[in-house]
Order: sequence, then C-alpha cells, then structure tokens
Amino acid sequence: MPASPIRKLVPYAEAAKQKGIKVYHLNIGQPDIETPKLVLDAVRNSSFKVLEYSHSAGNESYRRKLVSYYKSVGIDINYNQIIITTGGSEAILFGFMACLDTGDEVIIPEPFYANYNGFAVAAGVNVVPVTSTIENGFALPAMEEFEKKITSKTKAIVICNPNNPTGYLYTEPEMLALKEIVIKHNLYLFSDEAYREFCYEGKQISAMHLTGVDEHVVIMDTISKRYSACGGRIGAFVTKNKNLLDAVMKFAQARLSPPSFAQIAGEAAIDLPSNYFDTTKAEYKSRRDLIVKRLNAMNGVFCPNPGGAFYAIAKLPIDDADVFCQWLLEDFNYNNQTVMLAPATGFYSTEGLGKQEVRLAYVLNKDNINKAMDCLEKALEVYPRRK
Amino acid sequence: MPASPIRKLVPYAEAAKQKGIKVYHLNIGQPDIETPKLVLDAVRNSSFKVLEYSHSAGNESYRRKLVSYYKSVGIDINYNQIIITTGGSEAILFGFMACLDTGDEVIIPEPFYANYNGFAVAAGVNVVPVTSTIENGFALPAMEEFEKKITSKTKAIVICNPNNPTGYLYTEPEMLALKEIVIKHNLYLFSDEAYREFCYEGKQISAMHLTGVDEHVVIMDTISKRYSACGGRIGAFVTKNKNLLDAVMKFAQARLSPPSFAQIAGEAAIDLPSNYFDTTKAEYKSRRDLIVKRLNAMNGVFCPNPGGAFYAIAKLPIDDADVFCQWLLEDFNYNNQTVMLAPATGFYSTEGLGKQEVRLAYVLNKDNINKAMDCLEKALEVYPRRK
Repeated sequence: MPASPIRKLVPYAEAAKQKGIKVYHLNIGQPDIETPKLVLDAVRNSSFKVLEYSHSAGNESYRRKLVSYYKSVGIDINYNQIIITTGGSEAILFGFMACLDTGDEVIIPEPFYANYNGFAVAAGVNVVPVTSTIENGFALPAMEEFEKKITSKTKAIVICNPNNPTGYLYTEPEMLALKEIVIKHNLYLFSDEAYREFCYEGKQISAMHLTGVDEHVVIMDTISKRYSACGGRIGAFVTKNKNLLDAVMKFAQARLSPPSFAQIAGEAAIDLPSNYFDTTKAEYKSRRDLIVKRLNAMNGVFCPNPGGAFYAIAKLPIDDADVFCQWLLEDFNYNNQTVMLAPATGFYSTEGLGKQEVRLAYVLNKDNINKAMDCLEKALEVYPRRK
Repeated sequence: MPASPIRKLVPYAEAAKQKGIKVYHLNIGQPDIETPKLVLDAVRNSSFKVLEYSHSAGNESYRRKLVSYYKSVGIDINYNQIIITTGGSEAILFGFMACLDTGDEVIIPEPFYANYNGFAVAAGVNVVPVTSTIENGFALPAMEEFEKKITSKTKAIVICNPNNPTGYLYTEPEMLALKEIVIKHNLYLFSDEAYREFCYEGKQISAMHLTGVDEHVVIMDTISKRYSACGGRIGAFVTKNKNLLDAVMKFAQARLSPPSFAQIAGEAAIDLPSNYFDTTKAEYKSRRDLIVKRLNAMNGVFCPNPGGAFYAIAKLPIDDADVFCQWLLEDFNYNNQTVMLAPATGFYSTEGLGKQEVRLAYVLNKDNINKAMDCLEKALEVYPRRK
C-alpha cells in the first residue's frame, strides 16, 4: 500500500509549523471557498431525534433530488441508478471491487489521482498506466497507446475529467475515442467527474453524454469540491448498468450506510441558485491565471494552462520532487513562510516519471497564492540541488 | 459478495408497507433510543465556515478526548494509538486489509456479525468459522476447536464482545484462553466492542484489559450503538501496535478522512454525564427480559438469555428461516401488522447451520416489542411449513 503523495509530507509540515513557520498548503485539494451557508444551515436546522442509519444507497429524497441536478448538466438518469457513497473515494473503491477480480487490470492515463492506487491495492487489482506528458498539456494519449496495454485481464479504463492532478479537460474527439475503445474491447469506462463545474476553456463532456454505452459507463461523483464540502464525505456511484448496481449494493449494504448529516447537506445543495457556480468558477479561473503566470515567469519553470479543476502540474528545475518538497518544509523558509506542494512522482505509476514535476492546488486566495509563489521562486533560487 | 442478511429482505418490507402493513423492524440494530441532545446540538451549534477534510486519523481534539473515555472503561492508551474510522465497519475493513494478505485466514466464532463476510470478501481473505451453539447460549467454543482450524495462513481471531448476533458476553476464563492462543500462534486478536456499555450480567472484559498482548490486540469501536448515532458513521481502530497503526494510516489517507460533522458529535458525547448509560442500559435490560420471556413462552421456541448487546437468537419450529422471514413480509399479517427478522443462516459461515434460527434486535420500545411478539406468535401458529 503506497503512502499518499498528498499527505505523506504532513509530519514535516507539522514540524515546520511548530517552529513558527507559516505553511501555504498547495498540496491538497482542500478549497478555502466557504461552504454555502444554505448547505451548512440545512444540517444546523435539522430536527430529527435519532441519528439513524440511512438506506444503504442513501436517502431516497436525496437521490430523487439528484436526478434534477444531473438533468441540469445534461445527464438523464433516474434515482435508482444512483448509489450515495462515503465520498467519491468509496465510489471508486466500489467500482473496482464490483467490476474487477483479483489480478484484473484497469488502465489509467498517468499522471493520475494518486489514491486510485490505494483503492486498486485495496481491491487487489493492478493499475496499468498510459503516459500523458506535460509537453502537450497532458492531453489524452493516442488510442494506440491504450490498445498496446489491453490484455484479457483489462476490465476498465479510468479517467478523471476535468483532470486531477493535471487540470486537463478532455475534448469531444477524445471522449468519442474512449467510447469507441470501451465498446470494441468491452470495457467499463469509469469517469471521475468531481470537478465537472470547474471548466475554464469550454464545457465538460460527461461520459454520460456519450450515447450507446449505457452498460459501460460509471460516473464517480462527489460533493466535496463542487460545494466545498470535502469533510462531508458524500459521493455517488452512478450507472445505468443494472447488474452493476446490484453488485455494488452488496458492498453498500456491508458498510451499512453513507453518513447521515452530510446527506442533508448534499440534498440542500441542489437548491442553490443556478448562478452559484459562476462566482466560484470566476474565482478559481482568476487564481489559475495568476498561478500559471507566476510559475511560467520563474526561471526554468514550465506550467501548461489547465482547462479545468483547480490543479496544475509544473516542471521545475530540480533533481527530485520528493526531496525538494520535503526540503521546502524542513530546511527552507522565506520571511518565516514556506509552501507545501505535492511531488508529482506519486501521481505516476511508471517508476522514475514526474521527478521534476509538482502538483499545485490553487485552493488559496490570490493574496496567499502570490505569497506561496514568492516562496517557491526564492526556494528555487537557493535550492542546493537545482538542476 | 454475499447479500446482507440484515438488509436483503428490505424490498419485501417495502412492498409490505406499500400494501399498508405496519412492519416491526427487529431485523436491524437501529436503536429507537434518542441520540443525546447534547450530541446533536454540538453539530447544530457548530460555527465553522468550510466543511473541511479532517486529519486522516480524525480530529486530534477528538482523539485526545477519546483517551479519557477509554480511561473511564479501564483502557490506557494515548491519542496517537487511535485512528478514527468511517463507522466500525471501516475499522474492521482496515484491520483485514492491513493485517492479512489475499488468501490469508481469519477465525471467527459463528454465528457472527454477517458483514464480517463482506469485509473479508472485500479484503480478499477467507473466514474460517468455529461453531458455537444455541444449546449452551453461544459460549466461546473450546480452544481445541480453534486450534483444529489454525493453519500457516491464519493471521487473526475476531470476536465481538458482547456479541452481535448472539448477545453472548465473554467470561474472564474465555478471554484468558483467547490471550493464550493468540500468543502461542502469534495471531492478531480483533475485538469488536461496539456494545461495551450494554452488559446485563456482569462486566465486559475488553481485549485491552488483557496484559502482555499489546502487539496482538486491536479494538474495533464505534459510536453507533453507544450513543444511538448509527448514521454518524464514526468508529475507531485502536491498537498499541505501532507498525500496524502505520499500515492502517496508509488506507486511512487513501480515503482522505472520516466524516467531519459526526466527529463533532462523537467528541461532544464524551461530555455526557457518567450516568448516561444507566438509563439506556436499564431500558435495554427490561426489553431483553421481555423479549426472552415472550419467545420462550411460545410453543416450540427456545431463546437463551443474552448477557449483553441488544440481540437475541431464537430457535423456531420452522423449516427454513430465510423462507419464513420472507413469508412474514410477503404473505402474513396479523391485524395489518407483521415483524421483520433476520434469518440466522446469514450469520453462520458453515452451510446449512442456523436454518431454524432468527436474530432479533430489541431496539423497539416494550409496547412495540409486545406487538411484534404477538405477530410472531400468531405467525408460528399459521405458518404452513411449521416443523
């Protein structure tokens, strides 16, 4: 079981803080955006007397309301095609456990959300990467690259769209190419759409916008980023494949139910005004513009412009991102401040890739992003193992 | 992946309700006891602005407070020996995943909490049962029975104390025997102590009361039953084994964090007055006395007196508990009422056992328990496949 690249440096950050150093956290996708008051108030104003188990698939009232949310983003499903999960994490774990046997393989474009590895280990399945590169902004690798990796054990392709950790937003031709390949090889297409609303260049094409692949497509969803509600631990497993829903329900029943409080929050969120995302999106876009500009202005640094989500991967003039990120916390400060980044090595499955890359989550306000970038700029100037 | 015996009949219960039949739920350990107001109010009065991820091991403030709770039940640990989990369910899953490799074996006295099966399947490990019997009240099987089942693949013994589904409370000699065997064969002892406070005949001996087995013992804990807070999905993985804590933390990091709202609830619960459990325990004891008396008064029914938890297993004069429990929902009603029970077959791992047994959770008030027992009594009189 690999350690989380996002969290494994936490002890070093804690030690830095104990020395009185201010740490800017760009390592984790924990937004600073306030959770909408309407969402928190729904929980605070709840009046039940017993904090009961919910239905294993989640409260029916919540699932019914989610149908209208999905309709608003062009996805036509009914409430019993949704299983509420404990975070998007559990939706991914359920997908792996229900669709793959021990030793089966899942193909994922790398760099990818590192926790997919953890869930693969937990489910006993093997991740087979196809490599996307920073030079072309982490576009989807050519279908031939996927086909080279497909074996009799391959059961699914996983994408995250818009992508964590790259911020890449898949194009329509790329989504159609994926459709073709999952039909041709009879695979599942797991689409992690946690960042659906956060697209700055064009619109997201959901895997559920594809036609003729109802039996293949699963959406892994979550309220965490959408409503800045990461601590709620509420996600969803969405598919039109009846047999798969039945199989996942057994895992859902074994863990009894998703958290009750945050289901109330998630249900209330559907009532947010339709312009709710405009403000958040505008804020993230201006942060993206700032961080990408600051990074590319640094000597020897390259950062492609991400089309969505709130992550960017940058190539730095360093020898080893793991060493560098730890050094930032252990041995560096600028005016008693430093920055915490996620080494990109943990997002690649292929050994040796990402050694010069880091992931930055632009989840701080622009003032703090500027201060964090000041730290990074100074750090790169004095880093003893600069390359 | 087996279906949950507790929940698999839910569609039949829903159908019965749609026909206007009142269903008494004795199938699931969802207490009707109110969640303490202090606990719910802590969440309702919370004033944070962002529903953030917590630490992967849970909020430090909560873990520090739990130390005092454990001290109050005679368990001496420190806060970094506790990992907060998403329900007791996740504590069990983490234990299986961190301690056992694919194909390894865990020995569990049967009948046992059926979801252990689900977690074993999820973790790719095999459950090896040793059979306890209703005739002697489901006492711990003799150690020779355990030793017959121990192989090179055996890594752990799981107990639930007081027991779900039998209500059995393990004695001191039984706990000492378990200690001896886990030392002799170098095994983990996983002790599910969800029902610690609910003992009606003597006191619970925690696995952590045993001396000299710090490296072997893990407690799987939860706030679900203790504070009638099942929907919170907050549990704990507790051990003094440092290597094991490190291994479990990787799984904890992969799923990011346990639910934030209910951690607030769990933390507040530690402030309940020390006599809080007296009332709840007295209520459960009087329900136990009632249900056991009613059951044993029925023709052909036998129910041993459970020492703890809020479950009882009864032997009924029927051919097949699965058929009978479904029949109760599909084809029977008494004054437009019926009762939902859990067939005990799902709690046995050995094929064919438990066919005449059902589990009853006495989580309804005495008035409703009486009505449910009226239904069961009438049902047994008219059941066409009575034996």
